[in-house]
Amino acid sequence: MQSLTTGQYDLIYNAFSFGFATLAAATIFFWLGRSQVAPQYKTAMTITGLVTFIAAYHYFRISESWGLAFDVKDGVVTTTGYAFNQAYRYVDWLLTVPLLLVELILVMGLSRSETISRATRLGLLAALMIILGYPGEVAETVSARWFWGIASMIPFLWIVYELFSGLSKSIENQPEDARGLISAARYVVIGSWAFYPIVYFAGTVGMDGGTATVVIEVGYTIADITAKAVFGVLIFLIAVRKSQPYFDRQNAKVQPAE
Amino acid sequence: MQSLTTGQYDLIYNAFSFGFATLAAATIFFWLGRSQVAPQYKTAMTITGLVTFIAAYHYFRISESWGLAFDVKDGVVTTTGYAFNQAYRYVDWLLTVPLLLVELILVMGLSRSETISRATRLGLLAALMIILGYPGEVAETVSARWFWGIASMIPFLWIVYELFSGLSKSIENQPEDARGLISAARYVVIGSWAFYPIVYFAGTVGMDGGTATVVIEVGYTIADITAKAVFGVLIFLIAVRKSQPYFDRQNAKVQPAE
Repeated sequence: MQSLTTGQYDLIYNAFSFGFATLAAATIFFWLGRSQVAPQYKTAMTITGLVTFIAAYHYFRISESWGLAFDVKDGVVTTTGYAFNQAYRYVDWLLTVPLLLVELILVMGLSRSETISRATRLGLLAALMIILGYPGEVAETVSARWFWGIASMIPFLWIVYELFSGLSKSIENQPEDARGLISAARYVVIGSWAFYPIVYFAGTVGMDGGTATVVIEVGYTIADITAKAVFGVLIFLIAVRKSQPYFDRQNAKVQPAE
Repeated sequence: MQSLTTGQYDLIYNAFSFGFATLAAATIFFWLGRSQVAPQYKTAMTITGLVTFIAAYHYFRISESWGLAFDVKDGVVTTTGYAFNQAYRYVDWLLTVPLLLVELILVMGLSRSETISRATRLGLLAALMIILGYPGEVAETVSARWFWGIASMIPFLWIVYELFSGLSKSIENQPEDARGLISAARYVVIGSWAFYPIVYFAGTVGMDGGTATVVIEVGYTIADITAKAVFGVLIFLIAVRKSQPYFDRQNAKVQPAE
């Protein structure tokens, strides 16, 4: 592995720890939040928390693997010979990225058949996107990285098309005070996902090894927190707003006629 | 790193363990307390527990890092060459300090628009305060510590102004029996926060290395417990008092007419 300064090593280590703490805290927030949404949105909140839970687990493993790959003593960073496991990120994404899209579909409260068909299609496209990206991430050559990266962009663009063209009509049917948030959630997905290819190709544009490693590891961490925790908070707010009529009805029921 | 006596090493180690135990226990207290408050205060209790959860995680890591940095054998403390990770505290504060202010805003039960604008402004100012403090904490020179410390005081003073001037009118609109507690919560924020700059600058006033380290590490621990756990208990008491009318209504509803 490339050589790092202690500052670079520490920055990446602390970004991983920050990622773990944020994602673990977000998980609890989403699961406790289940009691604040109507029954039809509880599964959406469960899955929102699963996404951050799976990611928190992987950040814990990633930071362990990072600690094993380097020895930092008396201000000098040396490699130990144990490889830093890049695959944790891809195993994580293979699970969490399809689930992220399922969250968004579930919180929209579409018909059962539309929910199943959209969730299946978006989930499979997301899995394909991750699977095609991995060979490029671990490739030895820049050209292989570009080849697989571009292959992975095809399902990515298809997902973008689905979210913007396919979902537009469904968004118009959402309650007015949730419509803006659902549209914003789509932009958070696309905005944070657009960050991944930038990070992915960062290693190919002639930065030195240490700087490229910082950009990749810190960049992915920021993108993961945005795509999972920040996106999840939007899903929670959407679910809470859409649950209001349910709770109003509940309260009306138990109130005695005066 | 500076040399420590075994007494100094032990005092700091035990303070970290005390910090972990207190913050972990507080977390459970706040999350279990969710069921004792009205629906509109549940998010405030969730976040109060998130703050102590994130802090407990960091105290666990801090005490691990402290154990790795020193070897204490046969009554002699030697450094191992592995650095004590100062960044854990700042990563913690970057997450918890904005959330602390969000707790206070949420428990006040302001309108949706006032909640969003106040929480956003206070959260960003708090994050800025932490980011500006960090370069001074790890600085090699006393003058750099003073420069960043003073820079960090600008958003701090702005937060104090917001809490005392901006929130005063909103506090007047609070139910009478919660007003005193909300006002007290503000003083706990300011009082415990005022402690941080004292600790921050303690290393610059000519104490020897070991004494300065004790003041800094034990001082930050006491300040963290006050600002997160003690402050959280006040938030819980406020939420419970403000929930009383909700539970009175619920009881009136289900009670049979006699």
